[in-house]
Amino acid sequence: MASNIEKHTNDDVPLNGPALSVLSVDSFIHQSMGIILEDAVKKATDVREKVCEWRSPEELKELLDLELRDQGESESKILKRCRDAIRYSVKTTHPRFFNQLFAGMEPYSLVASFITETLKTSLYTYEMAPVFTLIEDAVLRKMMEMIGWEEGGDGIFNAGGSMSNMYAMNLARYRYYPDIKELGLSAAPQLAVFTSQESHYSISKAAALMGIGTKNVHMVPTDKRGKMIPSALEEQIESAKRKGAVPFLVNATAGTTVFGAFDPIDKIGEICEKHNLWLHVDACWGGGALMSKKHKYLLKGIEKANSVAWNPHKMLMTCLQCSAFLIRDKTHLLQHCHSARASYLFQQDKFYDVSYDIGDKSIQCSRKPDAFKFWLTWKALGTKELGQRVDRAFEMSRYLAEEIKKREGFRLLMEPEYANVCFWYIPPSLRNLPDGPEFCQKLHNVAPVIKERMMKMGSMMVGYQPHGGNANFFRMVVISPQVSRQDLDFVLDEIHNLGKDL
Amino acid sequence: MASNIEKHTNDDVPLNGPALSVLSVDSFIHQSMGIILEDAVKKATDVREKVCEWRSPEELKELLDLELRDQGESESKILKRCRDAIRYSVKTTHPRFFNQLFAGMEPYSLVASFITETLKTSLYTYEMAPVFTLIEDAVLRKMMEMIGWEEGGDGIFNAGGSMSNMYAMNLARYRYYPDIKELGLSAAPQLAVFTSQESHYSISKAAALMGIGTKNVHMVPTDKRGKMIPSALEEQIESAKRKGAVPFLVNATAGTTVFGAFDPIDKIGEICEKHNLWLHVDACWGGGALMSKKHKYLLKGIEKANSVAWNPHKMLMTCLQCSAFLIRDKTHLLQHCHSARASYLFQQDKFYDVSYDIGDKSIQCSRKPDAFKFWLTWKALGTKELGQRVDRAFEMSRYLAEEIKKREGFRLLMEPEYANVCFWYIPPSLRNLPDGPEFCQKLHNVAPVIKERMMKMGSMMVGYQPHGGNANFFRMVVISPQVSRQDLDFVLDEIHNLGKDL
Repeated sequence: MASNIEKHTNDDVPLNGPALSVLSVDSFIHQSMGIILEDAVKKATDVREKVCEWRSPEELKELLDLELRDQGESESKILKRCRDAIRYSVKTTHPRFFNQLFAGMEPYSLVASFITETLKTSLYTYEMAPVFTLIEDAVLRKMMEMIGWEEGGDGIFNAGGSMSNMYAMNLARYRYYPDIKELGLSAAPQLAVFTSQESHYSISKAAALMGIGTKNVHMVPTDKRGKMIPSALEEQIESAKRKGAVPFLVNATAGTTVFGAFDPIDKIGEICEKHNLWLHVDACWGGGALMSKKHKYLLKGIEKANSVAWNPHKMLMTCLQCSAFLIRDKTHLLQHCHSARASYLFQQDKFYDVSYDIGDKSIQCSRKPDAFKFWLTWKALGTKELGQRVDRAFEMSRYLAEEIKKREGFRLLMEPEYANVCFWYIPPSLRNLPDGPEFCQKLHNVAPVIKERMMKMGSMMVGYQPHGGNANFFRMVVISPQVSRQDLDFVLDEIHNLGKDL
Repeated sequence: MASNIEKHTNDDVPLNGPALSVLSVDSFIHQSMGIILEDAVKKATDVREKVCEWRSPEELKELLDLELRDQGESESKILKRCRDAIRYSVKTTHPRFFNQLFAGMEPYSLVASFITETLKTSLYTYEMAPVFTLIEDAVLRKMMEMIGWEEGGDGIFNAGGSMSNMYAMNLARYRYYPDIKELGLSAAPQLAVFTSQESHYSISKAAALMGIGTKNVHMVPTDKRGKMIPSALEEQIESAKRKGAVPFLVNATAGTTVFGAFDPIDKIGEICEKHNLWLHVDACWGGGALMSKKHKYLLKGIEKANSVAWNPHKMLMTCLQCSAFLIRDKTHLLQHCHSARASYLFQQDKFYDVSYDIGDKSIQCSRKPDAFKFWLTWKALGTKELGQRVDRAFEMSRYLAEEIKKREGFRLLMEPEYANVCFWYIPPSLRNLPDGPEFCQKLHNVAPVIKERMMKMGSMMVGYQPHGGNANFFRMVVISPQVSRQDLDFVLDEIHNLGKDL
């Protein structure tokens, strides 16, 4: 039916034939891939290279030429921009990057993420994302098995752990007060949430956004290792009830952000059962331990949880983001709580089983097939090797803790429970000062200066923070199998070198 | 300091040297990239190939071997899994994919997404993501310029348009009632939100999650083109006030999901001003028109908006997700509304200007550097070519509408305002039936059958839906410069071929 006469509109926009052929950019894509493999994969993970090449915001603005103009740029200029973006970015996959709760390069997950990026898919419906719909389901089921939910449940991958914790809060609220979805909170009682002082800030953020209010998040005290004290939880629940509030959710943390502490889920679960409260376990960070036969005892009782947040992009090294929210419910609570039944997506007169159209379970509309990144890694390594990696991370952090104890001028905050190792470096000038306010203040100023020098040197990245009444201390997080004992030795040597004159 | 003696722990976990070297997987990554470039880039965008290779869920489960086992698999098996995942996925970048509000392959954005995936970065702080922090800021500023906010504002890229709309609702609520963040809604008045009947379902989802309640989302009637009727909005605002509710937010849609209709932002803005309401514009889909000098009049008045949601991953073809939330405020409302001041991330004693640490503006914790995907495309094409692409999409959809009007058995629902073209196909057997309930019912059954045949054939993908009182109709969405007039002719021919016997 198409004629061969060149077709133009009034505005002289050519409509015949594609205006852009993918073949014409083939060489650009190939060249870019060469740069990525060389600079962002090989060099970025090479221990002899820098972790970062620090530039101040002002310098970097100059270097990057940020401005967006009317006219486009040549391919060679764009390739240079790719090189620059890589060059001045932090190499989080470098064996000496210990700054966050993620690290290292996981090649299978990387390839999987290239595939999902290229396929440009969103998980609304089976017809749109058949492969990834089934894969997400398979991964969620296996994760539930690891949790110990023998009868299964439901779940959803989403944009991050903060979102998972929000899902938990919303589902818990919906289970007890389904009317809030329609009517809002203005007619509802004052709800109360319980979480430990060491828990992630996303619990408060969720309470703020959800109209519950941060003041209705009760911060339960922790013991000196950072674990929630169950008796304190029960006291707070009872006290909130006496004041007329309605407790509905307890968040237990499996692997706190700073100390890596595990709340006693088992005991917290008993309290939740007694008071008929939803138990959510924020295992975003600590969930990885479930893969290890040796260490999964840390999450004892997690099978009692109503819901679990678990991010494979942390300990299990999947590319960012890979964040699962899991729920023990079998009554389609996710669907009921979130459905909006958009007729343009969720037609009921389709030719296949529309229970595979999972998009309406989600708070989001578009949603990325992140589960594939974990699935491919898991397929490639198997549960056993994933578990061995976790075991090794544990061993490495123990090794680091022992070294810290051995070395002069280093002081461990506490024995590591997970892969977080928290410690101070005390420069020679402070070593003979008595413990006290002056010592603390001086010590407090040490870590920021070492961090500045470290960043400018580019040799490694380790985070620091003040915490509770403690002076600034370093937190090393050991995850990646690309890290060796030598890298840990290096970090301690380097901290000493960078801070010995302070 | 490291000794050369092989170091093992009690459990015989080797700690010396990396347990995984990236070099050992170099060939795997290279081979995978070959598969991706061949199957997911070239073949997926080749008009002679299929858009999808349909398999039922049961068949596909067999083919994919989803189970996750104790033992890992060989590299060659993993490569096969990559090939299979690509093979059975829908090719959304294919020139005959018209099923969603995204389509086509944008090579610069694709390369940018490979870079961000490989660099594995999260936008918490400048020290973690220096390049992407600055690039996000540059892109947001330029987008604000396109909107017409001469004095700038603030903004954040996030996980999708639904999230952007939620940001708007939360900021609007916070501006009028900052106490809700701490105290929750239980002491607050009954809030009221206004949005058109044709608006995206995420407005209701946000109201449900945020404790406002879906019943407090007032659905304002639209005219026959799907545009909000300003007088009806004003009536609803006054009626809600009379009932004791407190209006605080109006959502105007620029580019509705089904019809691509633009609400009259200018008039809605006047009403918002008069009643002191927050005006949010959901331009997730229609924002692309701002790049076109010729068509940006459709968003006249958008400069009056307090906030705008705009997804470059739709009309502007950036890889998924690329979703911006923009706000005209200059008082750090995003920061005040969302901050939780986590001391392990947002230390105030850093050695650089911590105003570059933008992570606390966000509802999320980890957040992907999606802005880079748009920035690189914009750099490569320039504003002018981006605008020409949008113009071409407009022209293509007009061409399609004209063809539909010319052809027997096709009926246009309405002239397209944007790039959505909605139409019925009427098979010969129905052409002589009088309009009426019988005709409607029969027509309603046509599109699902054609869609089933289309999916099984794999020749193209076009969405259908019922809408209002209308029988199921097709919605074509024309975006990609890889689409030619011939592809549109093909779609109409093919619909006729697939449905003429019905």
